[in-house]
Amino acid sequence: MPPILAFLSDFGLGDYYVGAMKGVALTICPEASLVDIVHEIPPHDIEAGALALAAAYRAFPGGTVFVAVVDPGVGSARRPLGVDLDGYRFVGPDNGIFTFVLRRGGVARVREITATHLLRPDVSPVFHGRDVFSPVAAHLAAGMAFEELGPSVADPVLLPFAGSRRLPDGTLEGRVIHLDRFGNLVTSISGAELTAMLEASAASAGDVVAEIGGARVALARTYSDVADEEGLALVASSGFVEVAVNGGSAARRLGAKKGSRVQLRLVRPRGPSSGVGEEPW
Amino acid sequence: MPPILAFLSDFGLGDYYVGAMKGVALTICPEASLVDIVHEIPPHDIEAGALALAAAYRAFPGGTVFVAVVDPGVGSARRPLGVDLDGYRFVGPDNGIFTFVLRRGGVARVREITATHLLRPDVSPVFHGRDVFSPVAAHLAAGMAFEELGPSVADPVLLPFAGSRRLPDGTLEGRVIHLDRFGNLVTSISGAELTAMLEASAASAGDVVAEIGGARVALARTYSDVADEEGLALVASSGFVEVAVNGGSAARRLGAKKGSRVQLRLVRPRGPSSGVGEEPW
Amino acid sequence: MPPILAFLSDFGLGDYYVGAMKGVALTICPEASLVDIVHEIPPHDIEAGALALAAAYRAFPGGTVFVAVVDPGVGSARRPLGVDLDGYRFVGPDNGIFTFVLRRGGVARVREITATHLLRPDVSPVFHGRDVFSPVAAHLAAGMAFEELGPSVADPVLLPFAGSRRLPDGTLEGRVIHLDRFGNLVTSISGAELTAMLEASAASAGDVVAEIGGARVALARTYSDVADEEGLALVASSGFVEVAVNGGSAARRLGAKKGSRVQLRLVRPRGPSSGVGEEPW
Repeated sequence: MPPILAFLSDFGLGDYYVGAMKGVALTICPEASLVDIVHEIPPHDIEAGALALAAAYRAFPGGTVFVAVVDPGVGSARRPLGVDLDGYRFVGPDNGIFTFVLRRGGVARVREITATHLLRPDVSPVFHGRDVFSPVAAHLAAGMAFEELGPSVADPVLLPFAGSRRLPDGTLEGRVIHLDRFGNLVTSISGAELTAMLEASAASAGDVVAEIGGARVALARTYSDVADEEGLALVASSGFVEVAVNGGSAARRLGAKKGSRVQLRLVRPRGPSSGVGEEPW
Repeated sequence: MPPILAFLSDFGLGDYYVGAMKGVALTICPEASLVDIVHEIPPHDIEAGALALAAAYRAFPGGTVFVAVVDPGVGSARRPLGVDLDGYRFVGPDNGIFTFVLRRGGVARVREITATHLLRPDVSPVFHGRDVFSPVAAHLAAGMAFEELGPSVADPVLLPFAGSRRLPDGTLEGRVIHLDRFGNLVTSISGAELTAMLEASAASAGDVVAEIGGARVALARTYSDVADEEGLALVASSGFVEVAVNGGSAARRLGAKKGSRVQLRLVRPRGPSSGVGEEPW
Repeated sequence: MPPILAFLSDFGLGDYYVGAMKGVALTICPEASLVDIVHEIPPHDIEAGALALAAAYRAFPGGTVFVAVVDPGVGSARRPLGVDLDGYRFVGPDNGIFTFVLRRGGVARVREITATHLLRPDVSPVFHGRDVFSPVAAHLAAGMAFEELGPSVADPVLLPFAGSRRLPDGTLEGRVIHLDRFGNLVTSISGAELTAMLEASAASAGDVVAEIGGARVALARTYSDVADEEGLALVASSGFVEVAVNGGSAARRLGAKKGSRVQLRLVRPRGPSSGVGEEPW
């Protein structure tokens, strides 16, 4: 079974950068299967990269090594890191790119990459994806022990405002982190956080509405649970709450953008016939 | 010889979706070679996806399994299908995505995917690419018999207006389905339909002109058969008739767009010195 | 160790073209690892393709076979070529796509591809990437001797104005060939040419400034060598001189575009306290 190396970056697909990373990886681990997660992360958008990495990694088999490079601080003093979590390994800069992975996962081990013999000779100060992260990941994929990277790290950088917060009335508040190709609004609120909110309030999905801008939409299971062109919130395939419009673009419909505030608010049933279904959107 | 899994979708390359599909595939069939056909099919454009799939699949070796996911109805009642044709296997939604493959190919066997043990546990209602189609395709690539998918289907959905129609005077009429990166206009008229038209009329390529908008261009073999900046129609590498401009963009020159009507019209030679070459463009 | 095939083209990622090339390659060399360098080279921009190829190939292991197809003259009389250089093999059209590889590399052997039995049957006159270059590259990857391609070529096409020229006062002059995703301006001046200029003048990096438009920036080692939002020139990871802005977009800041003239000018120290650092940007 060939080892798997999966790549995520903000390098885009208009330059040779991704190809060069892969060439280096195959030099060290020629039998690896190379897979792209995504390279069109907006330039320097660590949070969007962190979200995509967390959304994707569990679809891969255990043992997969991930190279995650959104690295505005390349060439500065930020540490290069390795993370070992639930049998997956990750390498990338210590700038918050692992925030959602570390938050969603189990017990993580984190190490600083100090073993310079793993790097390419003549490391370019502006392309650590090729000269640091890809070769280190390839060594891990080829069987090198995780401990060989360098010393343990107790304080990996975490993005400060990522995730959600619980307001006094039980409302979960987060932000739009990413707009996908279909106009779905991916929020920073995880499905686990929503579940915890429901359990704390002994509430069910039907008791919750999502508010974004002036709009209010029901919490549902899938697009077709609501009428065509109607809005909804759902725990998406990424494991995060998304706001969508059935058969349309929520981004266009709701005028929402990256950073827009989203609230999941409890709406207690006021009687047997009442409920979310009565709220017009 | 490793099995091949080839992917086509409208998921784009700005999200983690394609990577997640591949992670799932490698979990089931780790030795597979994974190839992308295209993921930038316009969102929900089943017809463009159907065309790209038909244009690409014969370039692959027999035995290749194709995952084709343009799926606006995900989570609704549309059937998931498998298709076995000329030694190739295809999986995807029953919404017309296989229209051109079924029309161009030989004898196809079609089955509904009802074997739920092939799917990922906890199928997301909004991401059957990851949880239904990719794992099923990986099982096929790993050697599972096609019959294990589920019962035979006699009536796969076909796109209603795809392809071309023959007018009473012998003219072949189709539409522009896709504009490629170079501004070439890919039409719904297949090379086989053009050949049949020529044979039915005992005509040759020189007897045919293509009309689109107010413009009329000659049927030729390749771009350089006409002068620079001049238009032409040809049976392109996709197997479909395209309208192009030598050294330029037909889309820009002809103001044509997706859906524009195209006619391949017989222009009988009216004398020894006459012919298509005399028609100014 | 599986052979590696690496692909570069201007085919974009919105069409089936790249997928079809790979299907053909796997038909001939099923055990190959297929890697994309880049396919979003601007349509028909041979120079940008030549630059990306030269920037990427040395990151790959020796023995890698590269398919480089930016081919506005497809179907015309331009020769199909193979190049053997430093253990790497390249195939593509004879239109200058190998200019920077041939200039940067060691002793190259060049052959015209005349062995038609290597091609696909029924070569499409408009898609030699699929029907000529990909199958030939796959045969090389599968072990075929380079000499079997066809006769030696002594005069491969080289792009006329690529690279840089030395002005009488020692200034190196080149042009912007490519703007990358981060707004970095990739120039036609190679790091080797800069080194030669410095050696000829017994100068060091601190004696040189880059001029582009009305702006003048220091030559530095990496982005963080200058203040935030400040400009610099550096020998980038590509091996070529780039003009960048620390934490910003040089393209936006300097209003530069493809083709803009760049000069690396010697600024002799005029006294012990003087130097590039004094030049405001």
